[in-house]
Amino acid sequence: MLTFSVPPLHHEKMAEAREYIDSLTKPPGSLGRLEELAIHLAGMTGNVQPDIQPASLVFCADHGIVEENVSASPQEVTYEMAMNMAEGGAGISIFSKMIGAPLSVYDLGIMRPVPHNKVINKKIREKGTANFLKERAMTEEEAWLAIKVGYDAAKQAIKEGAGCLILGELGIGNTTASSAISAAILDIDPEAVVGRGSGIDDQQLIRKIEVCREALAFHKPQKNDAIDLLSKVGGLDMAGMAGAMVGAAEMRIPILLDGFICTVAACMADLLAPGSVDYMILSHSSVEPGHKIIADYLHKQPLVQLDLRLGEGTGAAVSYPIIKAANVMVKEMATFSGAKVSQK
Amino acid sequence: MLTFSVPPLHHEKMAEAREYIDSLTKPPGSLGRLEELAIHLAGMTGNVQPDIQPASLVFCADHGIVEENVSASPQEVTYEMAMNMAEGGAGISIFSKMIGAPLSVYDLGIMRPVPHNKVINKKIREKGTANFLKERAMTEEEAWLAIKVGYDAAKQAIKEGAGCLILGELGIGNTTASSAISAAILDIDPEAVVGRGSGIDDQQLIRKIEVCREALAFHKPQKNDAIDLLSKVGGLDMAGMAGAMVGAAEMRIPILLDGFICTVAACMADLLAPGSVDYMILSHSSVEPGHKIIADYLHKQPLVQLDLRLGEGTGAAVSYPIIKAANVMVKEMATFSGAKVSQK
Repeated sequence: MLTFSVPPLHHEKMAEAREYIDSLTKPPGSLGRLEELAIHLAGMTGNVQPDIQPASLVFCADHGIVEENVSASPQEVTYEMAMNMAEGGAGISIFSKMIGAPLSVYDLGIMRPVPHNKVINKKIREKGTANFLKERAMTEEEAWLAIKVGYDAAKQAIKEGAGCLILGELGIGNTTASSAISAAILDIDPEAVVGRGSGIDDQQLIRKIEVCREALAFHKPQKNDAIDLLSKVGGLDMAGMAGAMVGAAEMRIPILLDGFICTVAACMADLLAPGSVDYMILSHSSVEPGHKIIADYLHKQPLVQLDLRLGEGTGAAVSYPIIKAANVMVKEMATFSGAKVSQK
Repeated sequence: MLTFSVPPLHHEKMAEAREYIDSLTKPPGSLGRLEELAIHLAGMTGNVQPDIQPASLVFCADHGIVEENVSASPQEVTYEMAMNMAEGGAGISIFSKMIGAPLSVYDLGIMRPVPHNKVINKKIREKGTANFLKERAMTEEEAWLAIKVGYDAAKQAIKEGAGCLILGELGIGNTTASSAISAAILDIDPEAVVGRGSGIDDQQLIRKIEVCREALAFHKPQKNDAIDLLSKVGGLDMAGMAGAMVGAAEMRIPILLDGFICTVAACMADLLAPGSVDYMILSHSSVEPGHKIIADYLHKQPLVQLDLRLGEGTGAAVSYPIIKAANVMVKEMATFSGAKVSQK
């Protein structure tokens, strides 16, 4: 068991940012959400003009629940896509490159060895999680170990210069685990949060809802206990993401949330280390129905709505330039007095 | 008078793009609007993997209508901000730099000489437009001349390597001209489209609506005649933008629309050269109430909603990376067969 400590937002720096932004050569408030973002960045980092160099961390693992026919893709796609990510061909690879973010791929439990020097072997379970319809997905100790991998990964990325983290996941079956956790923490029927993931048919959708219902009835996870939730119906990928979020929040580093799975991991992070959620920006609004529900639960408004549902952190990477624009605004835009522009 | 010819979208290339996108390593359709954008780019450029290097062109001019107390900023701000743009301190300067777009600033009629080597002097009227409450804003010939400046500016930028144009404007008073044109083409009362521009108070808002009503009653512009509209109640900046849009559309170059004024100019471009609108992507949804109405009229959905209302082309520049992401997707993402990833 680890204990974490997340500092509060820096409210003085937020007020300072507000004042500075109003001195820039534009009508007050005319850059809308970019202004809000810049103020939030100041509150997170404690710096009105922070460095927000991004880094992408992707946590990969297999999910035993795929035995229940809840996924459109075969399980080996986790392995294949991890290789593709490392080779530079996956969505998160190309979008990370586009925004200048180094990409690190962590294997927390892919079904088979991943022989690629760019995939970091941190397997907690050799074959991924167990089928949580029949038993716990993992032990509590394994959940902690996966969290620690993410936590250390975030600290490492920050040490290497990251000023903003993009957290992604890869794991066939992980929307099922995310749906089960969502339904548990919201105390609602899984039907409201279960979606088609990578593209299941109607029959699989019904099965996916049933699986979540049965698993929750079987395990009865505690809604306020991240370790209980993750170990009973979660995933190693999600535990890794949650750990990385806590690691970033402790260091006042902004976290750019992606889609459904990532946003569920954000809930786990905030349970592990209350206040972590203050260090998160929701990048986009996913097509997965659970995403909006969980985003509302976290009181987060998405930056963009592009009907994405790929995961991997892709929505966060694609949205990063908007946050960069907010940062460039406070770093490079002229002031009224500096540029000799009249105010009304 | 000029005649223009805009080619239709390349539907075969759009079908080819659709097919290619479905071969990429992601669930079909999972990149949502990025996929639609990539298909649209293929249709515009006639190339599935086009080069979309951006260039920003800003058209500046003063507006005689400011005599009627319809603007929050003093008129000299047009001059001051043109200098600021050229010096690199304005919103469009910093966001153009962020996306690697060269910025060209054209003076089509700023009230006073602009002594800066980065502001291109193409003044059509030395003192900007006339007060259109009392007389035509400009002659028909002047409207054509301003269109030609924009048209030539676009061709020049394309010759220099631009594969995508961001069109901005600068001109205190130009939301009043845009409101008058919008109300005329939509045949509605100006109240629906008049907004607070750079931040007018309630009394000025009422005056701005009255001014538009009276000007339309006085001039009775023809709703399908861009030259009649621009010369009677328009602006030199808007005429320049419309000309640039036509120049880009003729060359199959995508146009990234900004806010209200830019979108009204887009209507003018499509009147001048029908089909131009097919070469336009609406970058964002502005706070100005007329923007959504005109966007709907053009059947355009904004890419992002960031509550911007700065103009200058800033919303287009901030949104450009999303279009770039669509382009990077078709250029760099691996295919299922290339990456040896299983399909369902």
